[in-house]
Amino acid sequence: MKFHTEYLWFNTKNRRELVPLTREVERIVQESGIDEGFVLVSAMHITAGIIVNDDEPGLHQDIQEWLEKLAPFRPDYKHHRTGEENGDAHLKRILAHHQAMIPVTKGRLDLGPWERIFYLEEDGRRRKRVVVKVMGE
Amino acid sequence: MKFHTEYLWFNTKNRRELVPLTREVERIVQESGIDEGFVLVSAMHITAGIIVNDDEPGLHQDIQEWLEKLAPFRPDYKHHRTGEENGDAHLKRILAHHQAMIPVTKGRLDLGPWERIFYLEEDGRRRKRVVVKVMGE
Amino acid sequence: MKFHTEYLWFNTKNRRELVPLTREVERIVQESGIDEGFVLVSAMHITAGIIVNDDEPGLHQDIQEWLEKLAPFRPDYKHHRTGEENGDAHLKRILAHHQAMIPVTKGRLDLGPWERIFYLEEDGRRRKRVVVKVMGE
Repeated sequence: MKFHTEYLWFNTKNRRELVPLTREVERIVQESGIDEGFVLVSAMHITAGIIVNDDEPGLHQDIQEWLEKLAPFRPDYKHHRTGEENGDAHLKRILAHHQAMIPVTKGRLDLGPWERIFYLEEDGRRRKRVVVKVMGE
Repeated sequence: MKFHTEYLWFNTKNRRELVPLTREVERIVQESGIDEGFVLVSAMHITAGIIVNDDEPGLHQDIQEWLEKLAPFRPDYKHHRTGEENGDAHLKRILAHHQAMIPVTKGRLDLGPWERIFYLEEDGRRRKRVVVKVMGE
Repeated sequence: MKFHTEYLWFNTKNRRELVPLTREVERIVQESGIDEGFVLVSAMHITAGIIVNDDEPGLHQDIQEWLEKLAPFRPDYKHHRTGEENGDAHLKRILAHHQAMIPVTKGRLDLGPWERIFYLEEDGRRRKRVVVKVMGE
């Protein structure tokens, strides 16, 4: 059995961004030499997530506006008594979920025709990591 | 190590449905001959998801009504500038999540007493797929 | 390849609680003797979930208040026609998600600096289980 682990670093210009990851994950799977197995893509910081959805800029705006509506930036989260001001970003990570498992079949990411992997940043402008771990044969 | 991959096709009569999957996933695990491992169930289309919850029709109505409340069908999603009208279904997939990993123990799905697997369709009446991939020994 | 499966039991004093799990999951991984692989942590009851987020009490209150806002306790869920009164807890499990996969690298949980694993109870005061399954080498 083979394992291959890489860490991707991000430092987005904006507080909130969606960053495409599919090619990087594809590259990591190819470098792993694994033909059958699973690859986990997981945001290691608790104000970021991973989504698998359409690569369409209008939808990406819809996603961010919708997350803001359901988990708004607000001054009065209890978490802010620690001096933080990113309570909303913690909730947005929970809502969008922080990880995805992609099947690897015949050496390729076994995604649907429109499925693309994105890093969801909700509290950017700092260095943050995603772990990508492949396991298989 | 063994791998076994199948694709399940759906073409629901209604736009929005919950379709039971547990038996099909059980069958696939049995055919894989895998006794210990994991099985991933993942919706390959970006307007559908997977949930693991109770097999109770009232709850299923509650789930669909709740998803509609939190991610309503609306004409004015930015995604609709592409000609689509299913922006809500993309958001519902994010909310409900698009996949689940089920442990396989002693040749069986290691589910809780009431856990059942469902395909969540939010933009049906077309052919769509779910990937089911088992990995183990 | 090695497999190791344990079941953790909970019986919380309150209806709604967040219970830290990271140490238990760490212990299970150590006992498995697995250095590289994945560990799945999955709530087996359909009114509980798993989250990976900050170990900060203010945030934990924010999370519970936010879940209550988006999936409120209400008398009129259709699920309640069965005699249950926990429809909200089923929805909260969907919102927070019921499982997480943690990579195991060099014998350790490969978590980010602030990532901690929590059991999310939304209908407690009864015995409920979480499955923890490690797979790797």
